[in-house]
Amino acid sequence: MRNVIFFFLLIGLISCKNEKTKENISKVSISNTTLERVEPLNWFIGFKDTSLQLLVKEPSIGNFTPSISYEGVSIEKVHTAKSENYLFIDLNIDSSTKPGKFDIVFTDKNGTKKTHTYELKPREKSAEEYVGFNSSDVLYLITPDRFANGDSSNDIGSKTSKINETGESVQFLKENSINRNDDYARHGGDIKGITNHLDYINTMGFTAIWSSPLLTNDMPKQSYHGYAITDLYEIDPRFGTLADYRELADKAREKGIKLIMDQVANHCGSEHWWMKDLPFKDWVNYQENFENNGNLITSNHRRTTNQDLYASKIDKKQNADGWFVSTMPDLNQKNPFMAKYIIQNSIWWIETIGLGGIRQDTYPYPDKQFMSDWAGAIMNEYPNFSIVGEEWSYNPLLIGYWQKGANNRDGYESNLTSSMDFAMQRKVVEALNEEESWDKGLVKIYEGLANDFHYASPKDIMVFPDNHDMSRIYTQLNGDFAKTQMALTTYLMMPRTPQIYYGTEILMDDFKKPGDHGLIRTDFPGGFNNDEINAFTGEGLTSQQKEMQSFLKKFLNYRKDSKAVHEGKTVHFAPFMGTYFMFRILNDEVVVSIINKNEKPITIDLKRYAEIGLEGKTLKNIITDEQFIWGDDIDLKQKGSIILTTKLN
Amino acid sequence: MRNVIFFFLLIGLISCKNEKTKENISKVSISNTTLERVEPLNWFIGFKDTSLQLLVKEPSIGNFTPSISYEGVSIEKVHTAKSENYLFIDLNIDSSTKPGKFDIVFTDKNGTKKTHTYELKPREKSAEEYVGFNSSDVLYLITPDRFANGDSSNDIGSKTSKINETGESVQFLKENSINRNDDYARHGGDIKGITNHLDYINTMGFTAIWSSPLLTNDMPKQSYHGYAITDLYEIDPRFGTLADYRELADKAREKGIKLIMDQVANHCGSEHWWMKDLPFKDWVNYQENFENNGNLITSNHRRTTNQDLYASKIDKKQNADGWFVSTMPDLNQKNPFMAKYIIQNSIWWIETIGLGGIRQDTYPYPDKQFMSDWAGAIMNEYPNFSIVGEEWSYNPLLIGYWQKGANNRDGYESNLTSSMDFAMQRKVVEALNEEESWDKGLVKIYEGLANDFHYASPKDIMVFPDNHDMSRIYTQLNGDFAKTQMALTTYLMMPRTPQIYYGTEILMDDFKKPGDHGLIRTDFPGGFNNDEINAFTGEGLTSQQKEMQSFLKKFLNYRKDSKAVHEGKTVHFAPFMGTYFMFRILNDEVVVSIINKNEKPITIDLKRYAEIGLEGKTLKNIITDEQFIWGDDIDLKQKGSIILTTKLN
Repeated sequence: MRNVIFFFLLIGLISCKNEKTKENISKVSISNTTLERVEPLNWFIGFKDTSLQLLVKEPSIGNFTPSISYEGVSIEKVHTAKSENYLFIDLNIDSSTKPGKFDIVFTDKNGTKKTHTYELKPREKSAEEYVGFNSSDVLYLITPDRFANGDSSNDIGSKTSKINETGESVQFLKENSINRNDDYARHGGDIKGITNHLDYINTMGFTAIWSSPLLTNDMPKQSYHGYAITDLYEIDPRFGTLADYRELADKAREKGIKLIMDQVANHCGSEHWWMKDLPFKDWVNYQENFENNGNLITSNHRRTTNQDLYASKIDKKQNADGWFVSTMPDLNQKNPFMAKYIIQNSIWWIETIGLGGIRQDTYPYPDKQFMSDWAGAIMNEYPNFSIVGEEWSYNPLLIGYWQKGANNRDGYESNLTSSMDFAMQRKVVEALNEEESWDKGLVKIYEGLANDFHYASPKDIMVFPDNHDMSRIYTQLNGDFAKTQMALTTYLMMPRTPQIYYGTEILMDDFKKPGDHGLIRTDFPGGFNNDEINAFTGEGLTSQQKEMQSFLKKFLNYRKDSKAVHEGKTVHFAPFMGTYFMFRILNDEVVVSIINKNEKPITIDLKRYAEIGLEGKTLKNIITDEQFIWGDDIDLKQKGSIILTTKLN
Repeated sequence: MRNVIFFFLLIGLISCKNEKTKENISKVSISNTTLERVEPLNWFIGFKDTSLQLLVKEPSIGNFTPSISYEGVSIEKVHTAKSENYLFIDLNIDSSTKPGKFDIVFTDKNGTKKTHTYELKPREKSAEEYVGFNSSDVLYLITPDRFANGDSSNDIGSKTSKINETGESVQFLKENSINRNDDYARHGGDIKGITNHLDYINTMGFTAIWSSPLLTNDMPKQSYHGYAITDLYEIDPRFGTLADYRELADKAREKGIKLIMDQVANHCGSEHWWMKDLPFKDWVNYQENFENNGNLITSNHRRTTNQDLYASKIDKKQNADGWFVSTMPDLNQKNPFMAKYIIQNSIWWIETIGLGGIRQDTYPYPDKQFMSDWAGAIMNEYPNFSIVGEEWSYNPLLIGYWQKGANNRDGYESNLTSSMDFAMQRKVVEALNEEESWDKGLVKIYEGLANDFHYASPKDIMVFPDNHDMSRIYTQLNGDFAKTQMALTTYLMMPRTPQIYYGTEILMDDFKKPGDHGLIRTDFPGGFNNDEINAFTGEGLTSQQKEMQSFLKKFLNYRKDSKAVHEGKTVHFAPFMGTYFMFRILNDEVVVSIINKNEKPITIDLKRYAEIGLEGKTLKNIITDEQFIWGDDIDLKQKGSIILTTKLN
């Protein structure tokens, strides 16, 4: 029945977006299919890759033979699986094929027939129009359960129930209570909550939204984080519907905001529907983990085995094939059907939602050749797209390894436009927390950026003050307002693609239990009913919270149009007397950030910076709008950051 | 007069090595030259590069025109300098030129003539026979003033005096007293001291000697370290003579020991002879440092400016051109005469001594294009030679950057066969000092070696437990014998070219004032008259010192012939229960090291290591000669390292 809902829902998307009633109607529509699952739910015409592999799930479908009669569409091969309840059908879709629907007719040896209507949709825009995020963007990372509850009807009720075989409406999600007092329970945030606050996000100056996963996590507990997906083609009903997701994308796009999807190719949740009836004996790695319920083989998390010339076979295998955690079975991407399933799933979401990028979770855990093929397949279809892979490493060698064009000795080409700069995240924090000395303090930023010579494209690497997996930046900097401002200035100025976690703008912290995941992902004030504080309106915020929010808003809105910051030349000077100057220059635009760690007033001689050519120029402070004439020296009155800009000509 | 001495000394080298009297005689021989300096002192026929540039130093020589009449030798160009006391003469030496002597006749406009006899020597062996150090070697690093005093006559006296213009013998070295109670004074060690103990070095299993610089450091104080060279063509008389150096090389070679020369292209000592009369106004960088004696511009030591895409011009210049310290003028290798001088000086020493490698000091400080040209010129003449550059960096990106074949994005090719692995030096120490945890302890070695994927040739990179500039390894490991043994095992087992600092074999330490340079370079016991303890004979050593000496001797002598350790495949396993297994494999030879940090006995299941194929094999403990049959498990009774070997077939 599930597919019926989705199918009509998709049609609904095009003809009558936002008509919620339509969706409900679709649940009771008649369908010509009796099949449990056919995935991808639909496909599109006009891809470079004309092949399509359908996964068909239906009791005993392995005993049936499919046939299709539609111009341009041919069945190339039919694969049975180990479970007789699956069929994999290889289709070819000629480039001349017209959009439309056709029946797939399944016939068994007794002549019994089952029919499924499949649709090939037209593409809404050209491949080139799917433009990914880049250094002109600042991403707003959201944990959707914790940002804003925009639709109380999906907190519990109809959206989280389904009609069972006997026609009753039953709750079907294992975790469905809301408890905002429990950091690991669901809090009720949803897609509508994000959509409702697009104005806030836009006004703040963010140009892209990365929400952590929105797909169904039908897990008995801690489902709120989203990384234990149990259905790769379904929006978690507690977050909303596919229509809601599409609405978010469309409304964001209207404001020039890109929507980035968080995808997980490495693992699924242990309650994923297929875990009860796996198509092949190697559909997931260490399948015996699940079947025997015995000694669980989890990953050794030794991610360096991906590069290590000397890694033992057993360590390599355990890293790649071990389960991420005991509740997350490791998908076997070396199984070609799994590989195709994941690639098609990603493309389906890009095309269906009109994504502006993908963030791929736990990047160094799946089979790395597959990951290259996966990103390669996407980039082949969407040449201007962006994908960022999560490798939690402080080692620039590994950060560089995963980026497209890395020129690796082993010939590996990830096809990823971006990787994550955990190294720089940490360097900036160390730089600000450490006392200044020869090799400590601001020199950590200076020497950290010197490593950029190794990267294929530094500006496309993603940097961030913090994210959903680490202590809040304000906590990392021990609640020091000025340091937090210096950190944000630095991350946003450097040649990178910055990401800011929701709540950083109002100094959200996790002092109560630093690093605690539930606590890091605290509710955004104002996003939930009866919140006394409202960060969207500013009501109830402290003066420091307001100051930080205003600071970021000013800087982000300047940055939005600053080509110098997006892609200008970078010149920085070795730290001097507790200060650090960075210049970004493009054509006549110069932006300079000055980080000053001195508690007491200090005057800095500006002769050292003469090569930039600012002498006599009038610069504007981006935050205060004050003017400053670049002369012999500059008085830095207090610890903090100053961001100035001018035109050279 | 100086050249006279050298000249005959060189002739003496070939005809009557070790006849000390000859050298003294030469001082009073008649000579046909009246010139102050002509450098290189001589040259050789048969180089690929047929050009030679002579530096001539002589009052008013700039007003003279040189001529040469010798078949195959032609003057290509004559360059005057800013100082009229210099001439630079470009010669071409045809490949068919015969060895021999010829006069260079200098004539001024008045017809006054000065004559200098110059020699082109034959090469003693083919270019290919100059084989550098590599991973089959273990280098013994010696601070010559502190190792052994083999010739008390050069402590003070005739060897450290010269005949002045009026025929008197005068002390000419500014620092010439010996005070073994002062860590920064001279202690009297010399070249003879090394030569006398070649048996010890050989028996211990070392296969190469790197002595810190032996050239004259006529500085008023702290001249013992050798890095403030005041004459690039003269052995410091307190260390001995050119003949002594050649004798050391020859006797070492007889034992299969390579001699590596420590060279300094970046700077000289402020008392260098040319500082009183510089040929050009840009012979050294920031020449005004010297001339004005004003604000001294020292290097900012920001070595990352060599790679940093964003470094300011001023920082780049200050790193490369600033003086290393105030007593070490920075040579300007961008002056083409200086560049040629340094390159020719290096080649002259290789050819004159028959070197087995060069260690280049302060590698990232000189002009980096010059350093590439320098190494390139040497490797062009000696294709099997080795050069290691000192970059004190913990960053594998920089270590890799300087090695030949680095495939750098900026196209830089250093031509260096080896760079120094300060990163791994520190990782091993951290690994042993830290408590084991997910990201601390032995995993530092494991993940450190994983970075090898970045290097052009990991096995040619030099690793070391410590050196003359850092705290002794025994001190770094807090006087823990077992940890020191584990550290040495690790450095010597890994795919690297290891270097051991003299005295490490007897646990020399600097606990009294950790890191103090003078203290680090403590006298080797037994090397000096009346030493109560003698590490050469073992007399007076503690049992732990003897045990470490014996351990190293056993391991080094095994390593000497172990092709598996030299160039075998490396397989290591992620640390487990406080243990770390590394295997080196070549053909049928397998060597395994087991590092065990557990204080209490522990049994390790060996099934995890099955992929190596050792089951049922009998292995020999390299240190104890005990046998061990590789079965289900291994009992590790105490903290420390075990090194086992076997043949697979």
